[in-house]
Amino acid sequence: MTESMSDSAPGWFSPEELDAVRRRLPILYVNAVPVRVDESGTVTHVGLLLRAAPDGTISRALVSGRVLYHERIRDALVRHLEKDLGPMALPHIPASPQPFTVAEYFPMPGVTPFHDPRQHAVSLAYVVPVTGDCQPRQDALDLVWFTPEEAAGQGVQQEMSGGQGVLLRQALGHVGRLI
Amino acid sequence: MTESMSDSAPGWFSPEELDAVRRRLPILYVNAVPVRVDESGTVTHVGLLLRAAPDGTISRALVSGRVLYHERIRDALVRHLEKDLGPMALPHIPASPQPFTVAEYFPMPGVTPFHDPRQHAVSLAYVVPVTGDCQPRQDALDLVWFTPEEAAGQGVQQEMSGGQGVLLRQALGHVGRLI
Amino acid sequence: MTESMSDSAPGWFSPEELDAVRRRLPILYVNAVPVRVDESGTVTHVGLLLRAAPDGTISRALVSGRVLYHERIRDALVRHLEKDLGPMALPHIPASPQPFTVAEYFPMPGVTPFHDPRQHAVSLAYVVPVTGDCQPRQDALDLVWFTPEEAAGQGVQQEMSGGQGVLLRQALGHVGRLI
Amino acid sequence: MTESMSDSAPGWFSPEELDAVRRRLPILYVNAVPVRVDESGTVTHVGLLLRAAPDGTISRALVSGRVLYHERIRDALVRHLEKDLGPMALPHIPASPQPFTVAEYFPMPGVTPFHDPRQHAVSLAYVVPVTGDCQPRQDALDLVWFTPEEAAGQGVQQEMSGGQGVLLRQALGHVGRLI
Repeated sequence: MTESMSDSAPGWFSPEELDAVRRRLPILYVNAVPVRVDESGTVTHVGLLLRAAPDGTISRALVSGRVLYHERIRDALVRHLEKDLGPMALPHIPASPQPFTVAEYFPMPGVTPFHDPRQHAVSLAYVVPVTGDCQPRQDALDLVWFTPEEAAGQGVQQEMSGGQGVLLRQALGHVGRLI
Repeated sequence: MTESMSDSAPGWFSPEELDAVRRRLPILYVNAVPVRVDESGTVTHVGLLLRAAPDGTISRALVSGRVLYHERIRDALVRHLEKDLGPMALPHIPASPQPFTVAEYFPMPGVTPFHDPRQHAVSLAYVVPVTGDCQPRQDALDLVWFTPEEAAGQGVQQEMSGGQGVLLRQALGHVGRLI
Repeated sequence: MTESMSDSAPGWFSPEELDAVRRRLPILYVNAVPVRVDESGTVTHVGLLLRAAPDGTISRALVSGRVLYHERIRDALVRHLEKDLGPMALPHIPASPQPFTVAEYFPMPGVTPFHDPRQHAVSLAYVVPVTGDCQPRQDALDLVWFTPEEAAGQGVQQEMSGGQGVLLRQALGHVGRLI
Repeated sequence: MTESMSDSAPGWFSPEELDAVRRRLPILYVNAVPVRVDESGTVTHVGLLLRAAPDGTISRALVSGRVLYHERIRDALVRHLEKDLGPMALPHIPASPQPFTVAEYFPMPGVTPFHDPRQHAVSLAYVVPVTGDCQPRQDALDLVWFTPEEAAGQGVQQEMSGGQGVLLRQALGHVGRLI
């Protein structure tokens, strides 16, 4: 699961310490699927980040990042959405903490559909309507809005990695826009 | 379950016909719990209608109403929220059709916590953040915003009927604000 | 949405009356996705009925049927699962009434992914593990167990109608077995 | 959140190391609410452990414990249910990874309804029907089955700590048995 650089090296741990912990403990993440909705709440578009991983590969990705010590899940969602979509995105964080699914990223592929070579990450996944202006920031190169049909299509799906294409289709199923 | 007069007599059925159907078929409803949320999505207030039932009794009530033939659930939610809260309420209809619960109102009390002497109503229940100005209309006498603590308290609970006090607490549990 | 003959003509309505109501009111349904699970709850197989519609077409279908007047949703699930899978199927009805989605079948195609030419049916959809022996009955010609991969594959998807292939993939997404 | 001794000192970390990590990272937990259900899936009883905390206080508690590195959530549920209820409990782990809520236990009281002085624990909460014989083990002194009414009543609620009484009522709301 690609993520912003800043998140890989928080103040609380040195990079070496975080690496050590990551080899022994599941790390709590959030995943957000940014969407545009119409007046009746129907999802019309899904926003995907264009991201460069540390190894140089480019992929489309959902908003994702760690939950920090002493941080509420909803505050982690606000922080990562702002980090990736900019301060004017106006995300509508869900009122309920119930995620639509939990994605378990294992360092070994094949245990679940989700894979993260660096760590065992357990990610609470939410669909988040955003109503403002989105300006990708930091290591996100771009943000592109796709229709549900495009997002579930082969083209986009092949540009996603670590199982996030599956997670995106789970989100589309949850909002009734899987085709 | 109290509801607006207009909804009891839609164009499609005469009141007599609707009464006859109501004695033989479960009728599909929606229930909406209007809430105010802060920037992190935390529910800060719950909106309850003050309603006069046809028999003159006054009670606090959730937004509720029938789903009409050929009407999507999300359009029924928009219609009933606008009917009860006015056209400027700006409700944020959930992106997902998954309700937080399904309330089964039986004409006979005791089968479930929910009771409607007129009919067997099956109601899909949603929490709906509203960000605009609310002006109660039609047979709603007033709309009052309560904190989660007040809404779950004995005072408010005793002013609700048909099991809607239970449904309200289920909603508070779902958004993590039950105390 | 195909269903058993017996369900189309319950004692409460004559077929003509039911037809008349169906043209003016949304009809409440349940859909059940029968699954086999292993000891950790992971879905290993999905059960699909082979069904002959009144017009002679054959298709694979989920368990589905009407909720009757004065019937709880969970009792409707038990009844339809027993009707379609036989009395020894041992279905584990979910403890929670929260469906994984609500499928809105419209008489006109295109409003939602779900279509039923006879009526506007609103169906609460549940995943139901069954642990016993399944013997298809009534108008179900056969019951076949598929792996999640097979169930989401083109072959099976093309044999489903009315949008039930989409609903099946929504169920697979919900249980974390979409691929 | 009380838990079994064995879980506090897993092979992967020394107690000192785990303590250090606990002061800097949210720790992933699962909470299970064991229930008895009837044939229609209705919850008839809720099982609560009688537990002695390290400081000697006795309280009623839900099944809870850490998710280990490289362990799936559903395997953590199986492990902790077996640990607390014995090997013959026959728990029916949910097919879907979607929890009914996420309980965030903070070391400082008041941030959420949930509190754990030792750590910031984020717990995925599930209702788990058990059909076998339950034999409390390890540090669980006893297991007592309560009706939903008893479980939500003042007596039981006052015997629960860290906010688990709230979590129990959220579970009862989720299964439609809050009163």
